[in-house]
Formats: sequence, C-alpha cells, structure tokens
Amino acid sequence: MKQKLVKTLREAIELAGLRDGMTVSFHHHLRGGDHTLNMVMNEIAALGIRGLTVNASALFDVHAPLLEHIKNHVVVKLLTNYMSAGIGHAVSSGILEEPVEFRTHGGRARDIALGATPIDVAFIAAPASDPMGNCTGKLGKSACGSLGYAFPDARHAKKVIVITDDLRPYPLTDWSIPEEYVDYVVEVDAIGDPEGIVSGTTRMTRNPVAIVMAETAVRVIRHSGLLKDGFSFQTGAGGASLAAAKFLKDVMLENGIHGSYGLGGITGYMVDMLQAGCFQSLLDVQCFDLKAARSIRDDPRHREVSAMHYAGYSESRSAAVDGLDVAILGATEIDTDFNVNVHTDSNGRIMGGAGGHSDAAAGSKLTMILAPLFRNRLPIVMDHVTCVSTPGQDINVLVTQAGIAVNPRDEELKERLLAAKLPVKEIGELKDLAERITGVPAPLPNNGRTVAKVIYRDGTLLDTIGLIE
Amino acid sequence: MKQKLVKTLREAIELAGLRDGMTVSFHHHLRGGDHTLNMVMNEIAALGIRGLTVNASALFDVHAPLLEHIKNHVVVKLLTNYMSAGIGHAVSSGILEEPVEFRTHGGRARDIALGATPIDVAFIAAPASDPMGNCTGKLGKSACGSLGYAFPDARHAKKVIVITDDLRPYPLTDWSIPEEYVDYVVEVDAIGDPEGIVSGTTRMTRNPVAIVMAETAVRVIRHSGLLKDGFSFQTGAGGASLAAAKFLKDVMLENGIHGSYGLGGITGYMVDMLQAGCFQSLLDVQCFDLKAARSIRDDPRHREVSAMHYAGYSESRSAAVDGLDVAILGATEIDTDFNVNVHTDSNGRIMGGAGGHSDAAAGSKLTMILAPLFRNRLPIVMDHVTCVSTPGQDINVLVTQAGIAVNPRDEELKERLLAAKLPVKEIGELKDLAERITGVPAPLPNNGRTVAKVIYRDGTLLDTIGLIE
Repeated sequence: MKQKLVKTLREAIELAGLRDGMTVSFHHHLRGGDHTLNMVMNEIAALGIRGLTVNASALFDVHAPLLEHIKNHVVVKLLTNYMSAGIGHAVSSGILEEPVEFRTHGGRARDIALGATPIDVAFIAAPASDPMGNCTGKLGKSACGSLGYAFPDARHAKKVIVITDDLRPYPLTDWSIPEEYVDYVVEVDAIGDPEGIVSGTTRMTRNPVAIVMAETAVRVIRHSGLLKDGFSFQTGAGGASLAAAKFLKDVMLENGIHGSYGLGGITGYMVDMLQAGCFQSLLDVQCFDLKAARSIRDDPRHREVSAMHYAGYSESRSAAVDGLDVAILGATEIDTDFNVNVHTDSNGRIMGGAGGHSDAAAGSKLTMILAPLFRNRLPIVMDHVTCVSTPGQDINVLVTQAGIAVNPRDEELKERLLAAKLPVKEIGELKDLAERITGVPAPLPNNGRTVAKVIYRDGTLLDTIGLIE
Repeated sequence: MKQKLVKTLREAIELAGLRDGMTVSFHHHLRGGDHTLNMVMNEIAALGIRGLTVNASALFDVHAPLLEHIKNHVVVKLLTNYMSAGIGHAVSSGILEEPVEFRTHGGRARDIALGATPIDVAFIAAPASDPMGNCTGKLGKSACGSLGYAFPDARHAKKVIVITDDLRPYPLTDWSIPEEYVDYVVEVDAIGDPEGIVSGTTRMTRNPVAIVMAETAVRVIRHSGLLKDGFSFQTGAGGASLAAAKFLKDVMLENGIHGSYGLGGITGYMVDMLQAGCFQSLLDVQCFDLKAARSIRDDPRHREVSAMHYAGYSESRSAAVDGLDVAILGATEIDTDFNVNVHTDSNGRIMGGAGGHSDAAAGSKLTMILAPLFRNRLPIVMDHVTCVSTPGQDINVLVTQAGIAVNPRDEELKERLLAAKLPVKEIGELKDLAERITGVPAPLPNNGRTVAKVIYRDGTLLDTIGLIE
C-alpha cells in the first residue's frame, strides 16, 4: 500500500517539490482560527524557498505573519477573494511590487479549473482525514463544516497536501475530498483554534438601523413577486442580513411558502429556515457557525457544494447562484449607478473583497444591497464608488434606513414597490440625504501605482486599486 | 437563469458541436438494459457525422447496433474496458481497421484525467436529474445506484450531455454528478429497461465446482493471516465469487471479525456483509443488483466512488484498490506464470475485458483467481495464456476444484497454507491434471494483424489480440 502519510510538514513540502517561484494555495474555512497558512509559510520560509505566489481563497488578520514573508521576498504575489484590514492596509501602502489579484469566489474556482491560475502545491486544512487523504470538514475537534472553497485546489493543483489534526482509520467514508486528489497527508497538533473557526452562535443584531433595513428588505421580497413556492435565497452573515433571514422565515411560515434552496455561506439562521420547512435544501460552500457545521454533518438535505458549483461562471455550464431568486448583500459604498464597493473603505484602503458578492449579484433575479446611509461620518451612497467590486447592472435595489432605491433598469419592480407603499426614492435623493448629514467628503487623491486588480467572475478586469501613501 | 434543458437529443448533440472525427463517451451502469448508447449513436448517424471514436467504459450485446455504425464508418475506433462476445467476436473478425484499445477501469479514468484520451462529448445516462444537470443513479424508475465510471467523463469531457428519464425540480440535492460539469440536459422516455439494469436478486450458485472453489478460497483467506479487524475485500459477481462472499461472511461473524471496507462492483451479498457488521463501509463504483442499488441510496455507509477513487493509478496518489487485503477474481485462462486472460476465449476471440481485474490484482495484498480446471472441454490452466490481461506477478493464488497453486513469489503464504493442510499443488500439476482430462489443445494460429491492444493500468502496452479469420 502506498504511504502518503509523512512525519512532518517540511517533509511533505519537500516531497511535493516546492521550489522558488511556484504557487501555493490555501482555503479559508478555518477563518479567524486558521493555523495552517502561517504554519506552512513559516516552514517554507525556513526551507529558504523564495518568490512564491500565494493563492488563498481569503486572508484574515490571523494571517498577518504573511506580511513578514512578503518583506523577506518569500512571497511576491497574492491572489485572493478577500483580505481583511490588517493585511489590506499593508497592501494598500505598497508592500508588494506586483498588484494583488482579487477574484470572486466563483472566478477563483473558474480560473483554477481553466488553468489560468495554476497551483503547484495546494494545502488543505482538513478537520478529519484518513492516511490516504480522504478528508472532511464535518468531523473532528476543528470541524468547520463545508470545505467547498478547497475543491478546485484539490482537483487541479499539481500536488495536494492534506494537513489534519484528526487522523482516522482508512477509509474515512464521509469524505468531502477523496484520496484520488491527494498526494501527501501530515498530522499536526492543531490545524486551528476551534474558537476562531466557527463562532458559537451568531447573535441577533440590536442595531436599530440594521433592523429597519432588514424589515424593509423583507417587505421588498414580499412584494417582488418572487416569494412563492420554489423560492431560493442567499444572504450574508452581517447583522442586517441575519435579521432579514429571521424576518423572512416568519413571513414564509405565515404564508405557507415552501422554498427550494438556501445558498452560500450558511448560518444557523438558514439552518432554522431549513428545519422549519422554508427550504428543501441548503447548498453550503462555507459554514459560518456551529449550528451550520452540525447541520451539514447530520442533515442530508444540507449539502456541501464546491466553489465552482456555488458560483462558477461558464457559457454553457451553471452554478447554484444562477438559480437564485433573491440575494441580500452588503456594501461599504454604493454609487448612483448602483456600483458597489466591498474592497476598500472610503479612504481607498483595502479591507475586504468581493468573495461571492458579484457572483450572487449576477445570478440572482433580485439583488438587494442593505447599507446604512453613512458610517463613521462618511456617506455610503455617493456619485462614484472608490472601487467597483460589483457592477451596478447586477444590483436591483438599495435598502437604507431612510428609504429604498430601485435600479432604473427595473421599472416594473419599482412600480410594484410603489404600489405596495414602500418608501421608494431616487438613489440621488438618498445620496443627498447622506451628504446632508456627513457633508461631501473630499475626493481621494489619484495615485499612480496599482496595488490591486479587481478581476470579475468572467476573468475580465473590473477595476484597480491604487497606492495609499 | 441559464437554459441547459433542450428538447431533443439531436439538439443537444448539435449544441455540443459534435463533428466528424471527434470522441464521444459512455458509461455502462445501465448494463444490459442500456438504451442510451444506441439512442445517441443512431441520432449521430442520422446527423451524418462520421469517423468517431467511441470511448465506452464497457460494451454489452445490447449495443450490437454499434456494429452497423462501424460498418458505415460512423464509428472508426473503440476504447473500452470490456466487450461481451456479440461485439467482441465481430472485432476479432476484423470489423475495425484500427485496433480496439482495452484499458482497465482505473486506467480509463487515469487516461481521461491525464488527457491521454480526451473526450469531446460525454453522454451521461442519469436515472434522475434536475434541469441543470445535478444528477444521480440512485433515484428514478431506471435507478442503477452508483455512477462511478461516469465521473471521469463528466469531469474532463469538453461537453457533457445528461440524458434522463426522470427530470426533477432544481436542485436535485442528492446529486452524484454536479451541474458544474454539465452543459446540456435532455429528457427521454426511457434511458433503459429496468429489467436489464439491475437484476432482481443474484441467486446463489448450485454449481458444485463453484461451491468447492468458494469454500477453498475462504479457507485460504482464513489462513492467510489477513482476516482480522480492519479486513478489506473485493469480489466479483460470478457464481463462485458470490458464494465465497457468503461463506466469508459466516466465517467473519463466527470469529467476530470487524472488517473495514468492501470494494468494487457491489452485490447484495456485500450489502449483507455490511449490514451484518462484517464491514464498516462499502465503496461502490457500480451496483450489480437491486439490493445494492437500494443500499447505496439509503445507507450512508455505502458510498459511491469514482472510477479514479476506485482504481486509478498514480505515483503519489492512491485509490481504494491500493488498500485491499483480499481480491477474488475470475479467469478464462491462467498460465503457469500466473498470467490471467479475461479478454478472449481459448480460441482467441474477444468476449470480455479486464474491467477492474488488473487494478484490484495490483492493489490487493492477496489476489486469488477462482477458476475451474477446464470449461467446455478446454483447459483453463495452460503454459501460455492466449492474452495477458493481468500479469502473473500480481496474482498470489489460483484456486481450482482440484487444488490450489501459490505463486512462487509467495513462499511464506505457501508455507502457511501447507501448514493449514490446504490442497496446495504446483501450478504445473494443475495444468497436467487439466490436460489429462481435456487433452492438449492445438496451438492457435498466429495472425498478423492486431485487432486490439491491451493497455495496462499505468498506460503501458501489456499485450495485443490478433485477427481470427
């Protein structure tokens, strides 16, 4: 029998043949609790390997040691779908010579599958694995639920290394990623910190602005004509989005509506909707909390999807986002053309990324942005977003605490919502309202050098992000 | 939302861009009941497309209309892992100019994955599918259970067409093959004849020779040192193999042995073993009967594996065959070097193929061939097999009704079996015994032209099969 189980991470890296200038990849299901990216990069640095590209589905502040590896030229390029402020601000200040390539969750999967962004060695953090690499996120002390974002890496990387802290007898029958994709398996003490992997319970927001937006969003859904049997839905994990899921559940139950599926990163609120009969199934690319991670383990109606199945774009193939009726998404900025920014703050500094934002927006029949008029004395509605993360043509409705705006492309929807006496305004009015409170912010200086490219889900360049001195 | 559902098979073939000289592929889970291959090839012929390569995981006599398409040059080349006599005899008589390429189940998957045998259009016969192509073999009137052999086709073909006779609402949550791989979906009246797809119950053999061989085989397993907790096992669907599974079950239960997994094409006998606690799981690439098809639908311990996961060969990756303790396989001929022929009869005419034979033999610690000394007055044990399907180095023991022979490479095993008073003989003795009954058959004439190549699981040429006038 083949021996894939190696004693140390170093041995696995050496056996995989990692050399200067190659590309390594990581997935982010362990979120803020992830230990593996730092563990691997430290080992790579210690081996003296330089000039790497890191393709990570998302980077969090826990990955801040990456900045040291960038300074030391161990890492010279980043490809990612999301970057929280700790790393984002450093990138904005010009730490890398080559621009970061931001993609969407679907776009990353697609470009890996098409070979546009080949991976030499993929590292899969697996909460449980057998010695041959049949592995899953559903079991073990570091259980995170779905491993959906890691599927493209496993399928297409030249070499695949599974890192686990729960080695089980062969065969681990409940695999998510099968041994056929795996070259080496390494056991470590802890792939992550369970506290940071899945939050215990996501608590309901008490923010009155978020609650008003959530209530309004559900009224929009009710009157959109889409809320009927077979309804499909995606929402995020932010306060207003979660509140909207909760209110929507009540409306669906009151009206006896049997939806088809809930999609995306899944929270306990979506699990509640499944269990209450609002959906027939959940398609889950990432679990946000313990309830979701337990549900995907125990309930066959709650299924793991690959990033490609979730959101991949292709001319003749499909993804689950293509069948969405309604998506509720957030924004750090939205402009009067409905373009949305989720990459930077209003000072132009990187603190996020599209993730599945533009994928869900493109696929969904009704895409709603829930955003307050202003945050920290800065307006959210403006003439031009600092960075276009999702094009305005894919956004149908903006919901704020002071009213909603409908994209002029959706005249019929606007009529419906007006007839239902929703507080429909022109988006320009919402902008004026915001500016009346915050004042008009000074325009950002234009910087020459590009520190990041925003690549749309179909592989085209959507925008660039400039250096902030 | 994308429209993948097209009205007719013809439309799907046209949309997929099928042209002269391309390669189409099929899988054989509907076995003798399959309607799809003929349906598709008739449509292709009617479209006037010529010069195709057909890559089919197996071909049965139900596919005899293929011979007409060969005569008309619609089809000019066949790649397959198995071919029953109806088509095999025609190939042996020289119906094709280009040699047939025989592969193993693992080798076919590997060569598709590596791009050595690219597929332009794959046709997936799916007992249930949604309009986006999330499909499964577990549900529907034509349920066949596993779709394992179709996974490589779905993953790697340029275009994938799902043909179903049970179209279900989106999303079909219990998919085996996800929509991300599927380009078009066509609904037809019947993808197959349920009678021919899964046999009701495989009945226990009453053939006394088969029963003696099965009993002896189980004695070999008992004394091999391998029958202990964690035991893994593959067997076929022939009479002696099934009887061996039944006897083995009794031995395992009597001795309280808890095995790990049963593998391969799965029968009701293997399901009995799972349910009785002999195995913790079944890894299933094809269901042979109704009981297996129901079990894979209902029992999460019974899991579908892709052909690659089942048997694919790679230097650093693994397949489930690599972890086998014991495999029980058949033979149409075996020679004194333990080489096995399962491709031709003793007249050299094609009537079979390796399927998973050489994969399981290579992976298993103990590979046993169960074969009678002679069939139809022809000896089975001989000096040189007519065709090498599986090399003798991967065979450990031959079991006949008149005794067993151990490969000289396995001296320790031979000692064990002698100590246990099993009827161990030299393989030459078994050959002499066979010839004493049947006489020595006249050697086959040597034919110049090659009608088929036998390609081993690692892609190397193992043998060729010559024309029979």
